Amino acid sequence: MSFVDKPIPETGDGELLIKLSMAGICHTDIELFNGYYGFAGVAGHEFAGIVEKSPLTPELEGKRVVADINCGCSICAWCLKGNQRHCPSRKVTGIAGRDGAFAEYIKVPVQNVHLVDETISTAEAVFVEPLAAALEISQQVHITGDLRMMILGDGKLGLLIAAALRHYNPNLLLVGKHAENLAIAKKQGVNTLLIHSPAELADSLPEKLGLFDLVVEATGKADGINYALNFTKPEGTIVVKTTSHHPSQINLARIVVDEINIAGSRCGDFDLALSFLKNRLVDVTPLIESIYPFSGFEKAFRHACRPGAKKILLNFD
Amino acid sequence: MSFVDKPIPETGDGELLIKLSMAGICHTDIELFNGYYGFAGVAGHEFAGIVEKSPLTPELEGKRVVADINCGCSICAWCLKGNQRHCPSRKVTGIAGRDGAFAEYIKVPVQNVHLVDETISTAEAVFVEPLAAALEISQQVHITGDLRMMILGDGKLGLLIAAALRHYNPNLLLVGKHAENLAIAKKQGVNTLLIHSPAELADSLPEKLGLFDLVVEATGKADGINYALNFTKPEGTIVVKTTSHHPSQINLARIVVDEINIAGSRCGDFDLALSFLKNRLVDVTPLIESIYPFSGFEKAFRHACRPGAKKILLNFD
Repeated sequence: MSFVDKPIPETGDGELLIKLSMAGICHTDIELFNGYYGFAGVAGHEFAGIVEKSPLTPELEGKRVVADINCGCSICAWCLKGNQRHCPSRKVTGIAGRDGAFAEYIKVPVQNVHLVDETISTAEAVFVEPLAAALEISQQVHITGDLRMMILGDGKLGLLIAAALRHYNPNLLLVGKHAENLAIAKKQGVNTLLIHSPAELADSLPEKLGLFDLVVEATGKADGINYALNFTKPEGTIVVKTTSHHPSQINLARIVVDEINIAGSRCGDFDLALSFLKNRLVDVTPLIESIYPFSGFEKAFRHACRPGAKKILLNFD
Repeated sequence: MSFVDKPIPETGDGELLIKLSMAGICHTDIELFNGYYGFAGVAGHEFAGIVEKSPLTPELEGKRVVADINCGCSICAWCLKGNQRHCPSRKVTGIAGRDGAFAEYIKVPVQNVHLVDETISTAEAVFVEPLAAALEISQQVHITGDLRMMILGDGKLGLLIAAALRHYNPNLLLVGKHAENLAIAKKQGVNTLLIHSPAELADSLPEKLGLFDLVVEATGKADGINYALNFTKPEGTIVVKTTSHHPSQINLARIVVDEINIAGSRCGDFDLALSFLKNRLVDVTPLIESIYPFSGFEKAFRHACRPGAKKILLNFD
């Protein structure tokens, strides 16, 4: 990890330049710095800023924006149907092939930019990317109010998922091991259950709680899927959010016999997330653990690495 | 494995007695005899016979029938919506809690019985159970003609799946390593591809064939899922049919990043399978390797255990 004096990026065709206002440190960033993805550029993919220069769309200059991180090739079948997220030659801002937001300036494709409504604070806007990822679940699975639904894991993503998806299923249950985190969700109307050890997820709890139609696995652990399986009804669905570097050991026979569905889930729709923030459906501010000046990045990063740490923000002003 | 002289079963409430005509030996039977399921009764779950005695429905006596193997409790939520397959206290004929068809007589719940049309031979009728399991895929996933669809594995189940589902997707591709089995599918209009080693599924073939929207994993091997993943498009679906005793090592991050769906698939709808046989949509007869008299069960069983063996039938007449 090092501070490097880089020139302000030159924008290419269809790009604009953003001056960063705030950025968030995500678990993926910690993994990037640990070398898991072989990424050598500037990290940072949760951010908000002011458009500094936009030759193609000068009307955006001076506007506060966020930007989708998936940058497709524009010409493949995925991009042509508007789904850059799965473009096979995509670059991902701050993660793969494109410099990210831990810098004073960032360039992004114009089409990736979304205006931030004035009612949304800049700190809140930094949460658009992870909130979109939380809401992606609702775009993949038809969540109805009568489903028995559980979210496993009360980390930052688990909390966002619970707070957002309770508007699709008010009775969903968030299960986690951090009392402080569960309290944040509870305050937003989420049913919560504190466990003291993962062993409960294998032993007593499935019997006690019964089975669920929909289980969201957001534990961040490779074996989270097996805990999720303990709670899933036949013909039920597990949405997997965890991207572990360790392979998971899974008893597929169980999945076959009970005809269980497993759905991988990644990034989501920025417009939907912005709408949730504008309409005050989710309060992300209790997820902010601390705000550091950008010059204090190393300290901020070490803080973000603490187990159980909530969102660490960087302030560029 | 032993022949035991048992009395003709007494039928209970809502049951009828069938005199066996023919039965098939399935891979699951081999696993049962190897002690994998801790089942101590009479095995055999693919069968056809003549109703010998049916106090509740005497009009069925003398009729040729097959019978669904999942026997629910009749009173749970699953059974009340007509889905005995997932009744948590179900018994499964010849597999769990109920004696099966490797016997002269078998008793089954009246509601599980399906008449066999006179145009369907008794040998063909034995295939209703596995053909229903093959067709179950079409009940879980919306298979359309424009999907790029692959079936991985040309064992008995893979062949049935390919022959049946080509009516939903004429261009599906069956990939396997048994030239003789692939020839059977090819004769029924299925596109086939012979591989010589599983390594091709990891190395050259994904590049050569490109990716598929829907991959059916019917390899019978715990690592089949990982080969299937090599061929699956982002947002694509893998239907898993393999019930291995070994856990599978799966890279869930790949499933998350590419938002892949995995669907376990087991037993299916007998009426649909009977309709396919009656309308000659699938020819199951080339799948018959040999027919033994029931008295030659041990020899038949040893034959069924040979690698690559197709269906071994037992004849009770």
